[in-house]
Amino acid sequence: MAAVAALGLNLVGCKPKDAGSAVSGDAAEKVYVAPGKHDEFYNIVSGGFNGQMSVYGIPSGRLLKIVPVFSVFPENGWGYSEESKPMLNTSHGEVPWDDLHHIALSTTNGEHDGRWAFGNANNTPRVARVSLSSFRTEEILELPNSAGNHSSPFITENTEYVIAGTRFSVPTDNNADVPISTFKQNFKGYISFINVDKNTGRMGIAFQLKTPGVSFDLARAGKGKSHGWFFFSTYNTEQANTLLEVNASQKDKDFILAVNWKKAEEYLKQGKGRKEPAKYAHNLYDEKTHTATSTIMNEVITLDPKECPGIVYFIPCPKSPHGCDVDPTGEYIVGSGKLAAVIPVFSFDKLQKAIADKTFDGDFDGIPVVKYEAALYGEVQKPGLGPLHTEFDGQGNAITSFFVSSELVKWNIKDLKVLDRVPTYYSVGHLSIPGGPTKKPHGKYVIAYNKITKDRYLPTGPELAQSAQLYDISGDKMKLLLDFPTVGEPHYAEAIPAALIAKNSTKIYKIEENGHKYAAKGEKEAKVVREGNKVHVYITSIRSHFTPDNIEGVKLGDEVYFHVTNLEQDWDVPHGFAVKGGDNAEILIMPGETQTLRWKPNRVGVVPIYCTDFCSALHQEMQGYVRVSPAGSNVQLTWGTGKNPVAEAEKKVAKK
Amino acid sequence: MAAVAALGLNLVGCKPKDAGSAVSGDAAEKVYVAPGKHDEFYNIVSGGFNGQMSVYGIPSGRLLKIVPVFSVFPENGWGYSEESKPMLNTSHGEVPWDDLHHIALSTTNGEHDGRWAFGNANNTPRVARVSLSSFRTEEILELPNSAGNHSSPFITENTEYVIAGTRFSVPTDNNADVPISTFKQNFKGYISFINVDKNTGRMGIAFQLKTPGVSFDLARAGKGKSHGWFFFSTYNTEQANTLLEVNASQKDKDFILAVNWKKAEEYLKQGKGRKEPAKYAHNLYDEKTHTATSTIMNEVITLDPKECPGIVYFIPCPKSPHGCDVDPTGEYIVGSGKLAAVIPVFSFDKLQKAIADKTFDGDFDGIPVVKYEAALYGEVQKPGLGPLHTEFDGQGNAITSFFVSSELVKWNIKDLKVLDRVPTYYSVGHLSIPGGPTKKPHGKYVIAYNKITKDRYLPTGPELAQSAQLYDISGDKMKLLLDFPTVGEPHYAEAIPAALIAKNSTKIYKIEENGHKYAAKGEKEAKVVREGNKVHVYITSIRSHFTPDNIEGVKLGDEVYFHVTNLEQDWDVPHGFAVKGGDNAEILIMPGETQTLRWKPNRVGVVPIYCTDFCSALHQEMQGYVRVSPAGSNVQLTWGTGKNPVAEAEKKVAKK
Repeated sequence: MAAVAALGLNLVGCKPKDAGSAVSGDAAEKVYVAPGKHDEFYNIVSGGFNGQMSVYGIPSGRLLKIVPVFSVFPENGWGYSEESKPMLNTSHGEVPWDDLHHIALSTTNGEHDGRWAFGNANNTPRVARVSLSSFRTEEILELPNSAGNHSSPFITENTEYVIAGTRFSVPTDNNADVPISTFKQNFKGYISFINVDKNTGRMGIAFQLKTPGVSFDLARAGKGKSHGWFFFSTYNTEQANTLLEVNASQKDKDFILAVNWKKAEEYLKQGKGRKEPAKYAHNLYDEKTHTATSTIMNEVITLDPKECPGIVYFIPCPKSPHGCDVDPTGEYIVGSGKLAAVIPVFSFDKLQKAIADKTFDGDFDGIPVVKYEAALYGEVQKPGLGPLHTEFDGQGNAITSFFVSSELVKWNIKDLKVLDRVPTYYSVGHLSIPGGPTKKPHGKYVIAYNKITKDRYLPTGPELAQSAQLYDISGDKMKLLLDFPTVGEPHYAEAIPAALIAKNSTKIYKIEENGHKYAAKGEKEAKVVREGNKVHVYITSIRSHFTPDNIEGVKLGDEVYFHVTNLEQDWDVPHGFAVKGGDNAEILIMPGETQTLRWKPNRVGVVPIYCTDFCSALHQEMQGYVRVSPAGSNVQLTWGTGKNPVAEAEKKVAKK
Repeated sequence: MAAVAALGLNLVGCKPKDAGSAVSGDAAEKVYVAPGKHDEFYNIVSGGFNGQMSVYGIPSGRLLKIVPVFSVFPENGWGYSEESKPMLNTSHGEVPWDDLHHIALSTTNGEHDGRWAFGNANNTPRVARVSLSSFRTEEILELPNSAGNHSSPFITENTEYVIAGTRFSVPTDNNADVPISTFKQNFKGYISFINVDKNTGRMGIAFQLKTPGVSFDLARAGKGKSHGWFFFSTYNTEQANTLLEVNASQKDKDFILAVNWKKAEEYLKQGKGRKEPAKYAHNLYDEKTHTATSTIMNEVITLDPKECPGIVYFIPCPKSPHGCDVDPTGEYIVGSGKLAAVIPVFSFDKLQKAIADKTFDGDFDGIPVVKYEAALYGEVQKPGLGPLHTEFDGQGNAITSFFVSSELVKWNIKDLKVLDRVPTYYSVGHLSIPGGPTKKPHGKYVIAYNKITKDRYLPTGPELAQSAQLYDISGDKMKLLLDFPTVGEPHYAEAIPAALIAKNSTKIYKIEENGHKYAAKGEKEAKVVREGNKVHVYITSIRSHFTPDNIEGVKLGDEVYFHVTNLEQDWDVPHGFAVKGGDNAEILIMPGETQTLRWKPNRVGVVPIYCTDFCSALHQEMQGYVRVSPAGSNVQLTWGTGKNPVAEAEKKVAKK
């Protein structure tokens, strides 16, 4: 623990002196969004270990939606419906969980365009794309040769690429069974460049860069003058494989990796890319068929920087850099060494000159190391303890989060002077300014995503909600407005003006455009079809009945597929569907959509089905029955709604 | 649709005329809980189709926690860890989802005691008990002979019983394979009386009442003078089995079922109970072993009211009653007929007299029907459209929710006069007044849980959050304060003063009391043990490393069990654990706890493990590697942290 002790840091975080509230008198009014009014910003927040994205309204801090991405979501059938299961497929098979750390909102010309939100799977490496119209995950792409997809997703100015760097270097797939202690010889890092179709958003791996075995932490694309470059923070350049809290904190400086991706493109055109076998899943959700597909890919193109001079350079950066952020002009690259006593700010122009002049300090595993001073614009002195991340307010200032000293610190990008500091409660991780990573920050607020909660809310046992805090940054001084708890464990988040998204929101799916193979686009199309031991139920839902709602002739050993089509064409009228005793979740079906619940009956009897989403005053009556007979029974397959031979017969008797 | 049309109701809900906000000037201040301050009430809210309980703070409307109950919760391993899997076991096998509709907070002498929250599984019938100290689900009890456990859970004054009535009548298990159209002959309803141990909360089915085949909707226990009785709303007394929205809305009056459970106890003592075969799971979580067990039970005691005169009576109630609520004195029983034009209020005293005098109107399937007028105290006239639920303010008033006319209506219990009405946005379902169902309501607020959201928040695609609204009821007029979105689909909720819960909150588990079979209570106890193809890893976590963090000798075909013990003894320092490519979730381990993640490696390689819950400035370094060799490999089982033979050797070379 020598390295840590030498810094004199309390690495578990300090409690600020004034742990109470220090809010100004108008804070309540500033965060209050009156009933019937809307929030000003969407805050798209990573869910961390819940594997999802959350949507909050700012300034109210209200949770508007959880979008299921990498983890199963029994509440709407994500990962359980036949349509969504392929989305969670990987080269390892179906994986029900992941750890989503970072959000990247699509940009055009370096500015928010409100089309897609990208998110990373940190555990089983993948990148997802979520539509900001439907707020549904439309695509998930697995990343081979990666382990711990932390440095991801980060995007270029026009969303040309989404990039993803490995956190845990591992042996390559072709040389996998090696002693862990041979890290330096056998473990490699990979950075994936994912191209994105301008119109559809569809992703593919353009190429992977093979790098020395280090840990990639975070990254940002260049912008403006530095467009064409990418900058990655790295740690564990010690290449330790055990007790990293000590062994990866030995060196005084780790590196920022600068990548000239435009030059990499040139090498690719020259045929320098190498096709290598690689197994990974590419999953797409189709809004017309309301169905996902998963395709296993078998090949990836890799570039080895050692064979392609001029595409990667290391810049020394004190110490274990976490955030690596680029200012709106693209000139300044801020490295936040989480164990460092200063914040180094690098100059893109100086970096270019140093590269041109070959002002190098040797190499690291064959990659040139630019001299620290040659790339350095300057250092922010005594900024705080444990700097993690920096965002920009669009007024020439940067705000950096400090985990150990629990504060946000505002400083001027040009003169590197500290302008203001405010405490956070407690131990802030990421921070978000609306538009903070773009060429044109929207400013106005900064949100701190804190890592320690303790006494901030009413206690809820050993496990507490993570906590966020909202500050007004419209004036010279940052002002705390609100504490709000968050779901999962937010890491990075982005905020975007409501006006860029709200107008495009999908409200319903048109029933006439429903291309689902088993859709019943009207009650007349409802039917039950047996194919061997598979029973396909084409069932419709509309307030407040199913067609059919009585089914007989199902037998033990059958697999029943309830293909439920919601015939509603009004916004906010989903129906739900569930069956008693199923080893499955429910499904929620949006207006005009078809979703399928598989059910394998496990006992003889009459089993209820019902609508799980309160839909009308007669929702409670929206139910039905399926009769399950023994295997080999001669009960015929029949179905219907509103037909009741026994009751009809009784009525006739009563009339007489 | 004749029945519906005759009422002239728009059953899908009306939009109130003034759909904007009509809040008074001090609303912002009234709901603002300044950073560092705490909310005044816990609001324990059913999650509906997410299957969980949510904890909100009131008046801020902030989501403090989601407690996993009936649905898997990949974010903390609920349903995925070896310890929690048994909690989701049923007689149908493991069920990953359910639909939790109602909350009942434990009471002593009819007042909140802050010990447990009970919740129902609506789809695969079960009742759960959640500790209000640890905010963890401690027990889940399945209910045989039930289908659609909607009328549940409701409790008696001293939590002697939790009761649970079936929503979907079904054929009994011994006569299961019958035509659906034989509903009237073959379908029965069951009401379960679950006893609760005064000290431990442990549940068991005391007995089940066999009733005619109708749908039980909601219920309340008597209190004070009516303690010893229970009152259930019923619908579909038409006994229809298809198109219930029409066929179950034929009769002008359905029933409230009054049950004299003290008399039922007497019959049981007399040996009138019948032991019947029944298969159901009883699942318990032990806080000492940090492990759940599931026991399949095989027998239940049933009582047939036809053989036990004097324990059940039907009271006619207009039309399709939904809520059935008892006022704080126990004298008044309010039936809310969702298709009725009045709210009937019944008198317990009059009911007793009617029973004594046998003022009956014939019988229904052998059960006496008390004359409507004989039990009626009076009717609230022109209350609104679509009354659903009623709560009490402790000041002699009732507040009823109206789905169709979208409003809350306050009326005086004694004179049945309407005092006030406020619009809801939109189509309110349940409502909650702190302490509203107890003998001593805490009052101050009412919360409306609305069913339609539409334009209340920034749009988030076709699926929108459900919406709640908070009203101040401390004055004569109800005042709207706040809209807040909610997770899942809340049905019933209870609110309780923070003072009754906060003081008892569990913060950590004492490591010395950890009785888990595979706990490692210190790093010295960490080890890896092979038992055939099972590999047990006794692994510890403490800021910021695992012991061991390098493991070799695992082979394809092995099943690896990571038993992770969190050695921390500070509040709010969980660690998380995940392994790349596992077909499993993560686990979150609270301080002092052991949790187990099963992993079946599916390829050869070096696979990272890491801490998934940000724990310190060196959290990112909290990782390790497991080497997976081919089946039959001769790599020995070795493990350690901080030992690195290769690196040690290199250091020695460097020193020379």
